[in-house]
Amino acid sequence: MSALDGFWAVVPAGGAGTRLWPLSRRSAPKFLLDLTGQGRTLLQATADRLEPLVGDRLVVVTGATHAAAVAQQLPALGERLLAEPSPRDSMPAIAWAAAVIERRDPDAVIGSFAADHVITGDPAFRAAVAEAVAVARTGLVVTLGITPTFAATGFGYIWEGMPLGGTDAPTARAVRAFVEKPDAERAAAYLATGEYRWNAGMFVVRAETLLDVLADRHPELTAGARALAAEPGRLAELWPTLTRITIDHAVAEPAAADGRLAVVPAPFGWDDIGDFASLAGLLEPRATGPAEGLRVVGDAASVVSVGSSGLVSAGSGRLVALVGLDDVVVVDTPDAVLVLPRSRAQDVKGVVDRLADLGRDDLR
Amino acid sequence: MSALDGFWAVVPAGGAGTRLWPLSRRSAPKFLLDLTGQGRTLLQATADRLEPLVGDRLVVVTGATHAAAVAQQLPALGERLLAEPSPRDSMPAIAWAAAVIERRDPDAVIGSFAADHVITGDPAFRAAVAEAVAVARTGLVVTLGITPTFAATGFGYIWEGMPLGGTDAPTARAVRAFVEKPDAERAAAYLATGEYRWNAGMFVVRAETLLDVLADRHPELTAGARALAAEPGRLAELWPTLTRITIDHAVAEPAAADGRLAVVPAPFGWDDIGDFASLAGLLEPRATGPAEGLRVVGDAASVVSVGSSGLVSAGSGRLVALVGLDDVVVVDTPDAVLVLPRSRAQDVKGVVDRLADLGRDDLR
Repeated sequence: MSALDGFWAVVPAGGAGTRLWPLSRRSAPKFLLDLTGQGRTLLQATADRLEPLVGDRLVVVTGATHAAAVAQQLPALGERLLAEPSPRDSMPAIAWAAAVIERRDPDAVIGSFAADHVITGDPAFRAAVAEAVAVARTGLVVTLGITPTFAATGFGYIWEGMPLGGTDAPTARAVRAFVEKPDAERAAAYLATGEYRWNAGMFVVRAETLLDVLADRHPELTAGARALAAEPGRLAELWPTLTRITIDHAVAEPAAADGRLAVVPAPFGWDDIGDFASLAGLLEPRATGPAEGLRVVGDAASVVSVGSSGLVSAGSGRLVALVGLDDVVVVDTPDAVLVLPRSRAQDVKGVVDRLADLGRDDLR
Repeated sequence: MSALDGFWAVVPAGGAGTRLWPLSRRSAPKFLLDLTGQGRTLLQATADRLEPLVGDRLVVVTGATHAAAVAQQLPALGERLLAEPSPRDSMPAIAWAAAVIERRDPDAVIGSFAADHVITGDPAFRAAVAEAVAVARTGLVVTLGITPTFAATGFGYIWEGMPLGGTDAPTARAVRAFVEKPDAERAAAYLATGEYRWNAGMFVVRAETLLDVLADRHPELTAGARALAAEPGRLAELWPTLTRITIDHAVAEPAAADGRLAVVPAPFGWDDIGDFASLAGLLEPRATGPAEGLRVVGDAASVVSVGSSGLVSAGSGRLVALVGLDDVVVVDTPDAVLVLPRSRAQDVKGVVDRLADLGRDDLR
């Protein structure tokens, strides 16, 4: 597959990932980590996945504190690495990138893809993006809608409408509504209809369209982003004035309400590795050896299991030994070890909160 | 209380303690460790407990590999530290010490006490030992019988007979039988009778009596021990010739069969810290702080609990964080971390066996 003409990828690389502590830290968020043992970090895997679609038209936006690490992992970025002076949520980051790209190519279509998601089935991913790009050229905001596999309460949902039709858009549909994270009952109801898809934060849209739709409700943001692109030297002055808001609230929901949002079904595997239960689901249990029955991140030779199952992250060189535990999570790092049942994966944040209370910023 | 004239303590300091791995290792058996956080190792606490009874008449017998560590922990021992060239079970060790003591004081009464047991209630301990010494002077082999608190299958039992009578022996009784570790059903039956006590390996006997009783079945052992005491220079030559046998089999059982064994009830708290469940039972859960609800060995400031209970040993300086686990055991050391449910404490040996299979002698 050759790159799509005029298509740029924007990768916002941020997020604390406190549910993956102590693997992820403020100083080492999950996009900088090789969580699945592929030999590439999540950020690098994201870049690898996009390369066939965009060639070198990849822009990464990250916090200033992580810019050096990102540049080290993706050395070809050069000035296509944008460093936010402070975190201001996803919209300012994506708008800034859109404005930078718009100046270089006024007809550019951009796609935004998180730096820390895992996708399986690259051909299906590329086909869905290609269709989304075709739809975006018509002036719509396009989102990729993940086929839900369970009644998740941790994601927003996209309520599909009628097919758009057209030869370039065989699967795209209108969006009736863009809905926030539901409770369990509502999530189950969504799933039952077959008309709802997960919002994975993947948007494809003309850069100019994005900034124009944004300008409807937040003209100051569009103006600020374009000023930043025109005068990069004003970053320190302008950045703190940009409204803190997510792209969902600033663009996707208004576009859905205005009938300008489309969805392309995304029939590929997707996971945001939201917690250790999610990470465990991406790994196969070891079939043989001392760690038999365990899913292992890191060095399996450092793990010994006596009749146990679950997830072990071995990352300090020390031996990790488990006896008689089912569905446990053990995360070993050089300065902290975490143990919990897989069923409590959502509660890891409680430890990070406790560390903050204790003033243990060295460990967060 | 002043020391008992002519009473010597013999402390065999050995045992692998594989059920307390990775705290205890071949290179650091449990008697060298401060498992309960008292600021004294189990060996030191044993010496402290005996000092009021024996003054400096304490002899420690340990393996050559641990002699330097023992000397460091108990620097006053000097030549009262006997180093076994190789492990040969308890009888050769105690017989050797008995023969050394017999040469210095032919009328000496010796008491043997393991180096790695925890005793609570020192006044009751001292009173029981004093009574045992008085009974031993009459030529009996005397054992201290622990009041059983549950139907343990991990200890041998002593079946009590009639009271001995006499003003110096208000509580001592004859022993009907000295029985091996029972199965669960038999243990429950023993407990129900009220006539059985645990054998904690605490024997009090005249040194000469011990060697004479031993000589009935194992004359070569008595001769070898006395030769060792007479000619210490022959240690390397004589030691390997001594029969490998426990004091239970070599002396206690035959003495019981011959009507020469007495028991003094031991109404003090006793625990052999046989595994992590046993260790947990010796500690109180933290009432406040980040480790609230957990029993902690080591540095409680390195432990954070979110709704967990169980035992944590924090020994590497790293943070140990637990979320939502009940009755778990987490043991953190600089080169290994172990996690298991408290109910599986007996199965820790399985990890040590696995490490042997893997050739990881560095970790055992």
